[in-house]
Amino acid sequence: MSLKADFLEIQKTKVKEIETIIEEFLPKEEGYQKVIMEAMGYSLLAGGKRLRPMLMKETYLLFSGGEERKEEISALHAFMAAQEMIHTYSLVHDDLPAMDDDDYRRGRKTTHVVYGEDMGILAGDALLNYAFETALKAFAAAPDQSEKIAQALKILGRKAGIYGMIGGQVIDVKETGHAVSKEVLDTIYELKTAALIESSMMIGAVLGGAKEEEIIEVGRIAENVGLAFQIQDDILDVTGTTETLGKPVHSDEKNEKTTYVTLFGIEKAKEIVEDKSRSAVLKLKGLPGDHTYLEQLFRQLIYREK
Amino acid sequence: MSLKADFLEIQKTKVKEIETIIEEFLPKEEGYQKVIMEAMGYSLLAGGKRLRPMLMKETYLLFSGGEERKEEISALHAFMAAQEMIHTYSLVHDDLPAMDDDDYRRGRKTTHVVYGEDMGILAGDALLNYAFETALKAFAAAPDQSEKIAQALKILGRKAGIYGMIGGQVIDVKETGHAVSKEVLDTIYELKTAALIESSMMIGAVLGGAKEEEIIEVGRIAENVGLAFQIQDDILDVTGTTETLGKPVHSDEKNEKTTYVTLFGIEKAKEIVEDKSRSAVLKLKGLPGDHTYLEQLFRQLIYREK
Repeated sequence: MSLKADFLEIQKTKVKEIETIIEEFLPKEEGYQKVIMEAMGYSLLAGGKRLRPMLMKETYLLFSGGEERKEEISALHAFMAAQEMIHTYSLVHDDLPAMDDDDYRRGRKTTHVVYGEDMGILAGDALLNYAFETALKAFAAAPDQSEKIAQALKILGRKAGIYGMIGGQVIDVKETGHAVSKEVLDTIYELKTAALIESSMMIGAVLGGAKEEEIIEVGRIAENVGLAFQIQDDILDVTGTTETLGKPVHSDEKNEKTTYVTLFGIEKAKEIVEDKSRSAVLKLKGLPGDHTYLEQLFRQLIYREK
Repeated sequence: MSLKADFLEIQKTKVKEIETIIEEFLPKEEGYQKVIMEAMGYSLLAGGKRLRPMLMKETYLLFSGGEERKEEISALHAFMAAQEMIHTYSLVHDDLPAMDDDDYRRGRKTTHVVYGEDMGILAGDALLNYAFETALKAFAAAPDQSEKIAQALKILGRKAGIYGMIGGQVIDVKETGHAVSKEVLDTIYELKTAALIESSMMIGAVLGGAKEEEIIEVGRIAENVGLAFQIQDDILDVTGTTETLGKPVHSDEKNEKTTYVTLFGIEKAKEIVEDKSRSAVLKLKGLPGDHTYLEQLFRQLIYREK
């Protein structure tokens, strides 16, 4: 088996583990909440790369010396599930008719198409609220770690909110249809995409016991990965097909969005992806622990074809 | 001055204090987040009764013996602002075209009418996310109270989510246009309206140092208040005017909603309000501290004409 095939096998196992963790944290009671729980689960269990929880756990392992310390790992699992809920709610609301108006996501109908627009709004709200409820379970899971948990909660909230993902969404919405400078585009990408990658890795570092300056360095690495990931998205929107991506292509053109491809062309955009990727890997080598898997994951994310 | 006039004066002062607290916690930086901050502030600073933060603080004072202990009160203020943000986001999303489709609220245009539907969705998301960011500030404000703060956060999240307010919204949306039994209606009211009143008073109790059984009793009182408040809303929707209420009347009829008035008629509905109100006041007398103000507040809320 080549290294690549090995990596894909390991990744598959890790994705399965993450999906088990997410399912464990999903609300299970039935009765009156059955509809909303179905709608939450519909989007949350629709597959996907599980990138954010995976980055969180892998970063934790760097700082824990590869160990899964009992209480810490329970707290970490709560944050992994919470982060995936935040990511998912943002997709559910982003797909709404008043936003990007997308009918398909990951090859299946979007939440509001299946459950109605009102339930799409409520399912998104429910996922965001439940994300915080889930992360708060870390206190019970690891009573001795409450200082670290409070710090992790703060990062989770800030990077998801107006100083992070939502802030990016707002500029994106406001600027769609307008020509946008590289500076504004970078701000959108930094907030809309990189922020959750950053909080994922930073929370892993915090719970793993990283020092303050290490947490900052982890944030920088994640920023590079996030930006490269988003620019690759721009490239795939032009070069990919609906079949491989599981979502409509040329949506940027349809929505008159400025992207790295419209600003610089495909070749230059690819070079920038390459630069940011190299920078992330280089910085990663300065962190403790075994980086083999994370490095391969970065490369896969950045050079993915879907 | 009559007792009533005294009460109204005191209340006015308290509302002003609360609004100052909320403004302090509102995000202030400008730049790229300016639009979203404006949209958040537009709904959050639109006036209103400030009922939930007021109940939170008054309940705190019962258990603190009327004292405002420095660290505790800072933590409490963060939760007061957070709760009002949660309440406000729920109104913003509830008014959206895909939900109740209301153009007016508290006598002014609703958020999505002023800022567009996409910004209405995002402003609601931003308020919910920022509510948790705000409540989390309690940890820094009162480092010695982290156990109580974690307990308060748990209550805040649960009563706002699928086991509380959002759960109520979901049944409400699903059942609009259908005949609904008293049992289902009670569940909707308990979740949609009473849940946030409960968490407000319970969080006040927790931070004031109430014992476990006192926190439970506070929850029962708040449930009675919340149900009476909602049934009074049903009554006002039939007997009030757009001018006094600052929102359209007869909206329940328009939306084919089952209410206490459609189930029991106005007179019987008024009796039920009276019963629940009496029960709340009676239980309140069993709690420590000076209940004068809270009792008057309950009466005002329940017998309000707007």
